[in-house]
Amino acid sequence: MSKVFKPSPISGFPEYLPEIRRVEQQWIDHIRAVFESYGFCNIETPAVEEVDVLMAKGETDKEIYCLNRLQADPDDNSDARLALHFDQTVPLARYTAQHFNDLVFPFKRYQIQKVWRGERPQVGRMREFYQCDIDVIAVDNLPLHFDAEMPAVIYEALMGLNIGKVQIKISNRRILIGLLESLGIEDVISTTRIIDKLDKIGVDGVTAGLKDEIGLTDAQIASVLALSTIKTRSAAEVKDKLSALNVENEAFQQGVDELCFVLDYLSSMPEDAMLADLSIVRGLDYYTGTVYETNLLEIPEFTSSVCSGGRYDDLASSYINKKLPGVGISIGLTRLFSVLLEHGYIKAAPRSPADILMAIPSEEKRGLAQETAQALRKRGFKVELYHAPQKIKKQLSYAEKKSIPFVWFPPFEDGQSHEVKNMDGGEQIATTVESFTK
Amino acid sequence: MSKVFKPSPISGFPEYLPEIRRVEQQWIDHIRAVFESYGFCNIETPAVEEVDVLMAKGETDKEIYCLNRLQADPDDNSDARLALHFDQTVPLARYTAQHFNDLVFPFKRYQIQKVWRGERPQVGRMREFYQCDIDVIAVDNLPLHFDAEMPAVIYEALMGLNIGKVQIKISNRRILIGLLESLGIEDVISTTRIIDKLDKIGVDGVTAGLKDEIGLTDAQIASVLALSTIKTRSAAEVKDKLSALNVENEAFQQGVDELCFVLDYLSSMPEDAMLADLSIVRGLDYYTGTVYETNLLEIPEFTSSVCSGGRYDDLASSYINKKLPGVGISIGLTRLFSVLLEHGYIKAAPRSPADILMAIPSEEKRGLAQETAQALRKRGFKVELYHAPQKIKKQLSYAEKKSIPFVWFPPFEDGQSHEVKNMDGGEQIATTVESFTK
Repeated sequence: MSKVFKPSPISGFPEYLPEIRRVEQQWIDHIRAVFESYGFCNIETPAVEEVDVLMAKGETDKEIYCLNRLQADPDDNSDARLALHFDQTVPLARYTAQHFNDLVFPFKRYQIQKVWRGERPQVGRMREFYQCDIDVIAVDNLPLHFDAEMPAVIYEALMGLNIGKVQIKISNRRILIGLLESLGIEDVISTTRIIDKLDKIGVDGVTAGLKDEIGLTDAQIASVLALSTIKTRSAAEVKDKLSALNVENEAFQQGVDELCFVLDYLSSMPEDAMLADLSIVRGLDYYTGTVYETNLLEIPEFTSSVCSGGRYDDLASSYINKKLPGVGISIGLTRLFSVLLEHGYIKAAPRSPADILMAIPSEEKRGLAQETAQALRKRGFKVELYHAPQKIKKQLSYAEKKSIPFVWFPPFEDGQSHEVKNMDGGEQIATTVESFTK
Repeated sequence: MSKVFKPSPISGFPEYLPEIRRVEQQWIDHIRAVFESYGFCNIETPAVEEVDVLMAKGETDKEIYCLNRLQADPDDNSDARLALHFDQTVPLARYTAQHFNDLVFPFKRYQIQKVWRGERPQVGRMREFYQCDIDVIAVDNLPLHFDAEMPAVIYEALMGLNIGKVQIKISNRRILIGLLESLGIEDVISTTRIIDKLDKIGVDGVTAGLKDEIGLTDAQIASVLALSTIKTRSAAEVKDKLSALNVENEAFQQGVDELCFVLDYLSSMPEDAMLADLSIVRGLDYYTGTVYETNLLEIPEFTSSVCSGGRYDDLASSYINKKLPGVGISIGLTRLFSVLLEHGYIKAAPRSPADILMAIPSEEKRGLAQETAQALRKRGFKVELYHAPQKIKKQLSYAEKKSIPFVWFPPFEDGQSHEVKNMDGGEQIATTVESFTK
């Protein structure tokens, strides 16, 4: 016997017991069903991309895991440059470019896969996690309809997870960019970075930052704050408040129109479900128009955005000579799930998927038990057949340990009827395969 | 604009268009539903294990992909020893040992994940592929029931894939091992390796191999061949033919009893579905009793076993001081799928999951189209809302390109009725949200 090597969890690579994994599966199934109900098709890309593909847009700040073979073969460089994907956007861009001629545009795709980041181990820092992405990609022009569809889809996906109320916050980067342009503010990146912190550092913090770090005038700061403190779900209110700023700028006006289209489109959403919040800018330079963030209103432990995204002008120019604008949004599933699990919001599923444990009364009745189980499966029930004609008490105890809700007893003697015991309450009644319902 | 880097497929990492991926998804959904209908619970382990875990049983002949960070941090060795799993058996063993106290035994688990092997690129050689595994793990003793349940589950899983008839071939290693022991043949590994080739090299080839390579006598060879040429689904025939060999050996007798139990248990399976084939030995030393292979009877291009497995005495003694016997079987999903795809056996699914394309007759009717789409989704239909009030011809052509079977027209004028057009045939009729059926 070889020495026992006691394994321990690897930091950043979550793994669950079956009763928790089942909840995660239910989440994924639900999200997938919602995505498909809006006509998004699924793709799955390999875990691996060429490093050159991952780096095509230049250096990335993401920590990349490269692959190398344990028994490296000096004559073979074929996989010397492979690495695990760190998101699903780069793979989508590469996929769209590579299969361009075989896709129908607007290309509505969803993707639910794990991604990997070579982060240093740290509490709460994930190195392997699921992302659930939807994106719509068009050639040359992407109708604004899709910017408005994203929040509707995401709202339905998140509301089915039983995580309380969610609120999708929407803005349009053109509005702020247009304002800064009209004010003659040149350091757009630093300025938006400070505004992005409005929720955390408040109006005073932002004012100080814009004054001390960027050197804006009081009038400039007043304009910027008048814009970024707008929070409403009314398109009319957005229009009114922004008109009051008297900005003559094309990007600004386009942004206002786009945002108002989206707000009008979503006006039938429930109260609190959606909010125009002009402080949302998203750090990535990538986004060019509509941007989204999403908050959980009833989970105080989850403070950051659970689902973010936006519109971009250029998905894949690193890989193909086409203009491919898109809009997308991504649920950080594993992060959400793990935080909720940690704080006791996730109720474990039963340990077994089975609806029914089929008892075996005696070795002679094994065949009957087997047939009965099969007949119930044909009716759509999940049935575990107990493995041996042991004492009934033992069989019941097994069902209890695995939280199987019903135990079925085929007749012990010919002529008797089938019986089924409800493990929640203990009632045991005569039944038939044809008539049984949960 | 940065230089265009034209991406190309990476050998051994399959990737499909949406209409093919959907078929793969349907396969996985079906297999999963069958596994759950027999009470197997799901687990998912990280893509990554510690190299020490992967190597705990000693060197492996599998090519392992190790991870290293692109921007390696000299102060951090935390992930210096991580590698992608090359199968799901080692992760299952590690998982069972690590979570031993939280699992209920017999532990029936299924696992459907990708595994990776650092193979040299070669036609048909996969470096990333799905495996679909079921295993049952017990503490100390595992009832034979589970050996008999495996083929039933796998048969149902495979028959739902629309790949023609499948045949599960069953043997028990104890029978051959017992015979060799009783004949005084010591080189068991080389002998079984030659017998394993019976299907390929025939009786003459095996005779020559046993004579020239192992030096067996004619009488020994006759006994070995009498055993390994048995092919029947009748337990009685197995018993008769093996009794005729007059073997006095405990392992032999136990193997015969076990195999006959399994055959009896499965006697109600359809003709051709199951066969005792005593030439099946499985190369791995790992298996100790029942062994399985599975052939496709109607796909001549797929000659090897699509699904193999067996019983083992010792799952996890490398990681825990417990005796954990198990029985398991694994479908090599990606290999099967890719061979069938290559030879034209896979019929692509529609390009979109949507049942209905909701047309937008005019900008004013967009709200009505949106509401109608949502009402149909509530009734369980998958509905893509077209993105703009364009010419009807353009909207129909989009539905056609995405193979969406129905196009729905909300009334162009108030007071008119909804209409739906069946794209297969072209009939267009008045309908209502409440009455529509596919």
